[in-house]
Amino acid sequence: MKLIVQKYGGTSVANAEALKKAASKIIKTKEEGNQVVVVVSAMGSRTDELINLAIELTDSPEPREMDMLLSTGERETMSLMAMYLKNQGHDAISLTGSQAGIITTSKHGQAEIEEITGDRVREGIENGKVVIVAGFQGFNRDTREITTLGRGGSDATAVALAAALNADVCEIYTDVEGVFTADPRIVKNAKLIKEITYEEMLEMASSGAKVLMPRSVEFGRRYNVPIKVSSTFMEEEGTVVKDKVMEQAIISGVTHTDQEVKFTLFGVPDQPGIAAKVFRPLSEKGVSVDMIVQNVSKENKSDISFTAPHDQMSTVQEILNPVVKELRGEGLDIDENIARVSLIGAGMKSESGIASKMFETLGEEKININMISTSPIRISCVVDKKNVEKALKVLHKTFIEVN
Amino acid sequence: MKLIVQKYGGTSVANAEALKKAASKIIKTKEEGNQVVVVVSAMGSRTDELINLAIELTDSPEPREMDMLLSTGERETMSLMAMYLKNQGHDAISLTGSQAGIITTSKHGQAEIEEITGDRVREGIENGKVVIVAGFQGFNRDTREITTLGRGGSDATAVALAAALNADVCEIYTDVEGVFTADPRIVKNAKLIKEITYEEMLEMASSGAKVLMPRSVEFGRRYNVPIKVSSTFMEEEGTVVKDKVMEQAIISGVTHTDQEVKFTLFGVPDQPGIAAKVFRPLSEKGVSVDMIVQNVSKENKSDISFTAPHDQMSTVQEILNPVVKELRGEGLDIDENIARVSLIGAGMKSESGIASKMFETLGEEKININMISTSPIRISCVVDKKNVEKALKVLHKTFIEVN
Repeated sequence: MKLIVQKYGGTSVANAEALKKAASKIIKTKEEGNQVVVVVSAMGSRTDELINLAIELTDSPEPREMDMLLSTGERETMSLMAMYLKNQGHDAISLTGSQAGIITTSKHGQAEIEEITGDRVREGIENGKVVIVAGFQGFNRDTREITTLGRGGSDATAVALAAALNADVCEIYTDVEGVFTADPRIVKNAKLIKEITYEEMLEMASSGAKVLMPRSVEFGRRYNVPIKVSSTFMEEEGTVVKDKVMEQAIISGVTHTDQEVKFTLFGVPDQPGIAAKVFRPLSEKGVSVDMIVQNVSKENKSDISFTAPHDQMSTVQEILNPVVKELRGEGLDIDENIARVSLIGAGMKSESGIASKMFETLGEEKININMISTSPIRISCVVDKKNVEKALKVLHKTFIEVN
Repeated sequence: MKLIVQKYGGTSVANAEALKKAASKIIKTKEEGNQVVVVVSAMGSRTDELINLAIELTDSPEPREMDMLLSTGERETMSLMAMYLKNQGHDAISLTGSQAGIITTSKHGQAEIEEITGDRVREGIENGKVVIVAGFQGFNRDTREITTLGRGGSDATAVALAAALNADVCEIYTDVEGVFTADPRIVKNAKLIKEITYEEMLEMASSGAKVLMPRSVEFGRRYNVPIKVSSTFMEEEGTVVKDKVMEQAIISGVTHTDQEVKFTLFGVPDQPGIAAKVFRPLSEKGVSVDMIVQNVSKENKSDISFTAPHDQMSTVQEILNPVVKELRGEGLDIDENIARVSLIGAGMKSESGIASKMFETLGEEKININMISTSPIRISCVVDKKNVEKALKVLHKTFIEVN
């Protein structure tokens, strides 16, 4: 008998009809002789509705109260799902994050899962029940408070729960068929990826693929839980993320993101400790700095460029303006007009010349490269925003379609 | 320094505007130097929306899951209220029923409050915070489950919390100005009652006055907590329910209800134990039987009549049909076409002739009386539904307006 954790996202439980469709998948899995644990998100746009209610009342909602408010969304879904399954003749029980023993750090709105005790989950499974767990939320032991996990929190709940329960697979049901070699809305020839390694998926998620959040992939990798991503509304097989894949393509995918901003600090002293002075305050305020490039210019001065999420732009400015002054830098430049395209593939490790071929390909299309950063299995180029679609298409054609 | 418990009902927190209005009352009370604990209901029609979601999925929702679902409504309100107060510069914290230590029986949907530990409520008060508690919900220790208290549950939460905290007063804010001598929508001359005793309020609530539920009044009486009922939207003083009042009117109010049905069992044996056979199964199924009248007819047979809530009509039928057969009774009659009018007043205890004056008054208006029942401070007459307005007006004129 297999133990399967399934996660249904907001669109998969947006209304009674969708919820019934999701339930039929759960029932099918159960009737095939599996033990099933289900993690649910809030219904459709419910979380946004709750956020809007809060914003009507205050510009800066107390994070602890915001967690109290938002955690109700998944609780609605879980109880509706449990009562529907029960009504269909399948014993089920819903559990909140704290009832399921999802222990987190205390940081409201961005809590991290520390441990899953899961006693009541196991009890439910042993009694033959489908156990429905509210995603996105947990409980901090010291403060005795309800917490939420931030963006992608329900996926993280599902994968962490699968790890804690030693499940055979964590199935993520969503409104897309799986992970594609590029965004299929832009690249018409994009293909569904059947299998991909955790490392590649991590790089894809970190560089723009929105299907899975990096934190969920990282959980899967750390505890070696296979993650299957597929659509609630189709019978397709989807994408499996795991440690080894059968056929390793040289390049698995081309990703892009235009949700970043490029910052450049001009003319700061080129001496040890400067980078720390710039990046420590940013990390302390939770800014997720991505690509970092430093050039030494004349007169022992250097320019430091990096990218950060667009929605953290004003935070970065507030932090860096005094830093530039303190370092006697020449200025801070902000470029919102950028995008990033990345090639991801484990095959890069053994195949040389991928980077230069990427630069040539972009060059032939007259696409200027602003910044470059690489990892062992990824090459990213920052380009002007207006060039992103063209870059994506030509890279997909050159590196994926030819194979 | 006084400790005041305030309760805001659904209409008082229906939207951002109403919630701000309620918050201004809370802030005013706090700024006058009081400690404030607030109990909130779900916003407007939120509970009905949640019930409708459940009914879309199943005709018979699992009670445990229904409580999980419905308990989210008050949690939304409490966190919104807490974040708004905080934003207005008044430290506040929201607590769920279980966080507030509201320990109940295990009966889902109709749980009774057994105990309020209230540690976190006291902690909040001592730290100078306004403590916002989710109404209508609690926690059962044995099952470790969230429960809801059924109709009027948020009022019960507020009064029980006031009792547990030894509060000076429990203020119930609602969409009416207080308790009136009769329903002001029918009797134009109805007056606001400034003070009324627990006993009278219990009788009024049990016989049709909808402002307070009997269970809340009973809590107030048992622990001697004064309850003040007034409108969120007006500055009027409202009605205070307490143990002794300054000026005791002979008749405090005239109430009515048309939400009841009259059942009559004809020709059942007139012997000991028969009434128990009829009423025990009803009480076991939670039917709240009200007026009971028994007449002995010829041949040692008797007729038993009683009233019960309209929404329990089919339950009563299902229970009594076999009972009538078992007792070899002659039949079961159901009259939906009835209403009940009642006179309530502590002064009745010392004033004779009230009952006969009531019967005369109705008789002069050609209103036939179907059933009569009395308590030391109440006289109720069941009349045809079509006569209820006329009865109410003439009784109010005779017993209240003349004084």
